[in-house]
Amino acid sequence: MIAWELGGQGIETLVQLERPDPEPHRGQVLVRVRAVSLNYRDLIFARSGAPAPIIPASDGAGIVVALGPGVTRWHPGDRVVANFFQTWVDGAWHSRYGASALGGAIDGMLAELVVLEEDALVQIPEGWSFEEAATLPCAGVTAWNALYGDKVVRPGDLVVTQGTGGVSIFALQLAVAAGAEVAATSSSDHKLGAIAELGANVRVNYRSTPDWAQEVRTRAGRGADHVVEVTGQLNDSLRVAAPNGTVVVIGTTLGVEGGMVEVRLREIREKCATIRGVYVGPTAMLSDLVRAMAVAGTRPVIDSIFPFDNVVDAYQALLRADHIGKIVIGISSSD
Amino acid sequence: MIAWELGGQGIETLVQLERPDPEPHRGQVLVRVRAVSLNYRDLIFARSGAPAPIIPASDGAGIVVALGPGVTRWHPGDRVVANFFQTWVDGAWHSRYGASALGGAIDGMLAELVVLEEDALVQIPEGWSFEEAATLPCAGVTAWNALYGDKVVRPGDLVVTQGTGGVSIFALQLAVAAGAEVAATSSSDHKLGAIAELGANVRVNYRSTPDWAQEVRTRAGRGADHVVEVTGQLNDSLRVAAPNGTVVVIGTTLGVEGGMVEVRLREIREKCATIRGVYVGPTAMLSDLVRAMAVAGTRPVIDSIFPFDNVVDAYQALLRADHIGKIVIGISSSD
Amino acid sequence: MIAWELGGQGIETLVQLERPDPEPHRGQVLVRVRAVSLNYRDLIFARSGAPAPIIPASDGAGIVVALGPGVTRWHPGDRVVANFFQTWVDGAWHSRYGASALGGAIDGMLAELVVLEEDALVQIPEGWSFEEAATLPCAGVTAWNALYGDKVVRPGDLVVTQGTGGVSIFALQLAVAAGAEVAATSSSDHKLGAIAELGANVRVNYRSTPDWAQEVRTRAGRGADHVVEVTGQLNDSLRVAAPNGTVVVIGTTLGVEGGMVEVRLREIREKCATIRGVYVGPTAMLSDLVRAMAVAGTRPVIDSIFPFDNVVDAYQALLRADHIGKIVIGISSSD
Amino acid sequence: MIAWELGGQGIETLVQLERPDPEPHRGQVLVRVRAVSLNYRDLIFARSGAPAPIIPASDGAGIVVALGPGVTRWHPGDRVVANFFQTWVDGAWHSRYGASALGGAIDGMLAELVVLEEDALVQIPEGWSFEEAATLPCAGVTAWNALYGDKVVRPGDLVVTQGTGGVSIFALQLAVAAGAEVAATSSSDHKLGAIAELGANVRVNYRSTPDWAQEVRTRAGRGADHVVEVTGQLNDSLRVAAPNGTVVVIGTTLGVEGGMVEVRLREIREKCATIRGVYVGPTAMLSDLVRAMAVAGTRPVIDSIFPFDNVVDAYQALLRADHIGKIVIGISSSD
Repeated sequence: MIAWELGGQGIETLVQLERPDPEPHRGQVLVRVRAVSLNYRDLIFARSGAPAPIIPASDGAGIVVALGPGVTRWHPGDRVVANFFQTWVDGAWHSRYGASALGGAIDGMLAELVVLEEDALVQIPEGWSFEEAATLPCAGVTAWNALYGDKVVRPGDLVVTQGTGGVSIFALQLAVAAGAEVAATSSSDHKLGAIAELGANVRVNYRSTPDWAQEVRTRAGRGADHVVEVTGQLNDSLRVAAPNGTVVVIGTTLGVEGGMVEVRLREIREKCATIRGVYVGPTAMLSDLVRAMAVAGTRPVIDSIFPFDNVVDAYQALLRADHIGKIVIGISSSD
Repeated sequence: MIAWELGGQGIETLVQLERPDPEPHRGQVLVRVRAVSLNYRDLIFARSGAPAPIIPASDGAGIVVALGPGVTRWHPGDRVVANFFQTWVDGAWHSRYGASALGGAIDGMLAELVVLEEDALVQIPEGWSFEEAATLPCAGVTAWNALYGDKVVRPGDLVVTQGTGGVSIFALQLAVAAGAEVAATSSSDHKLGAIAELGANVRVNYRSTPDWAQEVRTRAGRGADHVVEVTGQLNDSLRVAAPNGTVVVIGTTLGVEGGMVEVRLREIREKCATIRGVYVGPTAMLSDLVRAMAVAGTRPVIDSIFPFDNVVDAYQALLRADHIGKIVIGISSSD
Repeated sequence: MIAWELGGQGIETLVQLERPDPEPHRGQVLVRVRAVSLNYRDLIFARSGAPAPIIPASDGAGIVVALGPGVTRWHPGDRVVANFFQTWVDGAWHSRYGASALGGAIDGMLAELVVLEEDALVQIPEGWSFEEAATLPCAGVTAWNALYGDKVVRPGDLVVTQGTGGVSIFALQLAVAAGAEVAATSSSDHKLGAIAELGANVRVNYRSTPDWAQEVRTRAGRGADHVVEVTGQLNDSLRVAAPNGTVVVIGTTLGVEGGMVEVRLREIREKCATIRGVYVGPTAMLSDLVRAMAVAGTRPVIDSIFPFDNVVDAYQALLRADHIGKIVIGISSSD
Repeated sequence: MIAWELGGQGIETLVQLERPDPEPHRGQVLVRVRAVSLNYRDLIFARSGAPAPIIPASDGAGIVVALGPGVTRWHPGDRVVANFFQTWVDGAWHSRYGASALGGAIDGMLAELVVLEEDALVQIPEGWSFEEAATLPCAGVTAWNALYGDKVVRPGDLVVTQGTGGVSIFALQLAVAAGAEVAATSSSDHKLGAIAELGANVRVNYRSTPDWAQEVRTRAGRGADHVVEVTGQLNDSLRVAAPNGTVVVIGTTLGVEGGMVEVRLREIREKCATIRGVYVGPTAMLSDLVRAMAVAGTRPVIDSIFPFDNVVDAYQALLRADHIGKIVIGISSSD
């Protein structure tokens, strides 16, 4: 089979190579990958070269082609999407799950064939493309965990999303589907236009309005019940929060050197606010997310689809950061 | 002022009479009532005569006209709707709140002027009529409590509602607004048509299909995450529930003599199911409900509006039970 | 290796036989069993012969002796106790876990050697015997789930336990360790004496006081926040509950023909009560239970220990039902 | 009646003066105060003079002596303790409750007679002194909220407390009563000795061991499930937390200029940690706390009791900060 491998530091170390077809063992399934989606995490890994050499990418969808011994939940031909952490099935986070992160701790999805755990797969909804399904595992599940992992979003809540990255767009769509009000920020008026079409009825350009937190409060007429924090400006996110509000701290934070940020303790205490860290999520959440989107008729936003031979172009597109929605790589079936 | 009083047993004991204008004391507000909504509870009270003599009705909306000493949250002219339990502001149920049930433990809303607790009022959303607001306190809050009081409805969940009573219609609307799937039952194909328009995409006539629980499971392809139980057929409601599902037992149950019902313990245990009793709710829930409906653009379903002089006709309409949505009494302003 | 097998219907069909040593596959561990504990469930299975032929018993503890491929969490020599459901690691119940119930769906622990899932084991606390550890999986985890699976026990809560079965004794001990007040019932004054020593400060003989629910309320001066229901008298358990109280419906219920019981709907609704089904629990709960007992210094109550050759005597002792605490079978090491 | 008033900036502006006896209005109760407890908050107010002139102190207990109109829950002679926020009865925090903070927003407890809200009182347990009861409202309720307001403490959890202030001592005692393990820090080996007697079995002097977070992890063999954070060293508190652990940010933080502190985002995210602000709590929590301590037999730790005429000495003792437990002012009955 053909796979992409990150050989070292830099996008230019990405190479296509031939590897022997993998075989599923007890409790495992062999999947022919049909689409892969990239995340900002993949860019970080490519730039740092940290886990190289590795088959990159956590997010992918495909077709079951063979079963290892003892597998009962799947059959050849099933259309499936894989969970980010292969061993985190349900329940609370444990450090040991970290060793099963696709495209980070272990080889990922950017290959024609991958072996996956039986309990780390979710069926793709009727009518969805592989490209759509492939967008869910990292960004979609993170957004779901942010909104439903602890303090859940209820109709009427105010949800603040930041920018047009994958997690933010999913959070925006899920909040709208759940009857919540969404206030979204972006540095680009063009992107704010796209955000408006997705249902965010308060929109603030944080570049032209640096005190976006106050502006959101004024325009919405209240504070936020949920802030999906991806900027690292933790204290501004706390300021926009309502009493009893929650600020969810998400995956990769851009532009925060060393990762230390300042926060005013009084802002936490006097609002009885909650700050909560989210680290993707278990397969049970991927399953809930898929069901929610299928029932609510919400479809992932795809920016562009690249062919399997043009993976480097896909990484470059991610680097330019002018996309809205997910960047996907399609893998045509050789069957 | 003019008020209606239930004098004894029977709808015919309802009489209009003149009473002195009430005065607000510390922490209270005087409200000119503009609309009142009836509930099945009001019919039970009228037939049994239990709390008579009393001004009936728990549900009403109007305009603040005077403030008692120390009131800071309201001003004359504010448009407000009153909570069912006047002293249950927030948090868990306590027996002592029972003594403040409007139109049951104390005089209710079927009067031109009522004195209400400052902390038991919620502002009516912009653009809503008094008639719409008056439908919320009993049926709307009960539905909200059923869906958000403990195990919350999330997008993608399957919610079962039964019939076209006030609670069931509100539950259906709220579930749809929250991105859930709704399966609804009714004894009438005509009513099922109306239910379809509100967004229930699985509909079963429980008269022509007595094993409605199995039929819902088959048509939805799965069990229910939430059952809003108003029929007294508790075991059927458990049967339709999915693993980890919740059956919420609501207010008044029709046709259950003595109130004893049978339930199969194994059905509870092997599904890890939850049965939960709901008794309307606190003002905080009325406030959440109002906000949710305003944000989601969901409006109460009103069957018919009767003038203040025709209250007996409104009770008769409730008795006929061929309505869909709420029966409301409008009180024209004498100003 | 030597194992016991239930061959058909009746305790007398239990026979010792020799079987080939089992081998651990990917993700599995081979354990030399050192102690096994019996549950009422084992008696039901023996009388009905339902899953025969099978190696019985869900509860056992022993020493890791070999690892299958890919196992990273254990080493030979580790002292471990096994979870009831081998595939339920964490999170909510799913029907598919049912197929992994030890001694029911699959062969159980009553053997010298068993193969167990890597993620279904918990380390035995320092200083505990294998016999003590073997008591936990079914009764201990069920009690933990009852008290901590949803509405948690807090210091000061009133917990009602019924009888001296394994679940009830564990629930009593855990509640006392958690700073709660315990009211316990039994049909025997002798057993009530033993219960007193474990810390239940309200004790009622339900044989001499049939209205035990009212008696508990009177003596405790309030209703129960948690009722660990094992009698099938669901409505009495609801009557003893306080407003917002929870009645947890447990595993095997004695003496309820067909399993249908009566319950008064009004009792559920007007108390805002919760009834919740509990079906043992995941490995994460076994782990939490072990940690809780180790920290709080609470030790399992063992009634008697039988040698491996006298398994039939152990079943007979269980049948007599005059034990307090667990009946255990010790398996001496042949090393 | 005699009361103390803070006249301006500085402890020396505290003066005793005579005021007319207050009268209870609708829903209020007149209480003869028998004991008052001081908090660090009272010292801050005295030094800044912020709310002066005011009768200080949030914490007090006494005897009901008269009832306003409509009061049904109390009778003259009842022994009661008052909640910190007079209008926060139950449920989630709302900003409007801030206007009812005793000794801050409104006159406090340092007087012979005070008027209090009927729903803001809790009965004192049998056998408790007024001095003991007076310690609960601010520090005790804050500790209860920290441990039971959201993520609850379960037996076996590891709880970290910091220093020997009122909140920390209550949190330590409650955690021990709940079957948890406690690791406590202090700058004084003498105080660590006292802490040991209260049941903290891991103790670290953070002065001699600046990296106390690592030291606690090493000695306990794991991370903390709950950190009751009072030092302002938020990032160290996050470092000591286990995966899924909670850091509760408490009331007044010493020595943090401007209140801005640094925190590493990665520490929050990769641990799926929660930071939660706590602002004392509602009367429902005071009631739960009282019940928990009564059932578990846990008594408040009192450092010293000063007579009503020596209030300034009590403030000076608080300022010296060498106390362990609460500083209380007793008011002898003039009856």
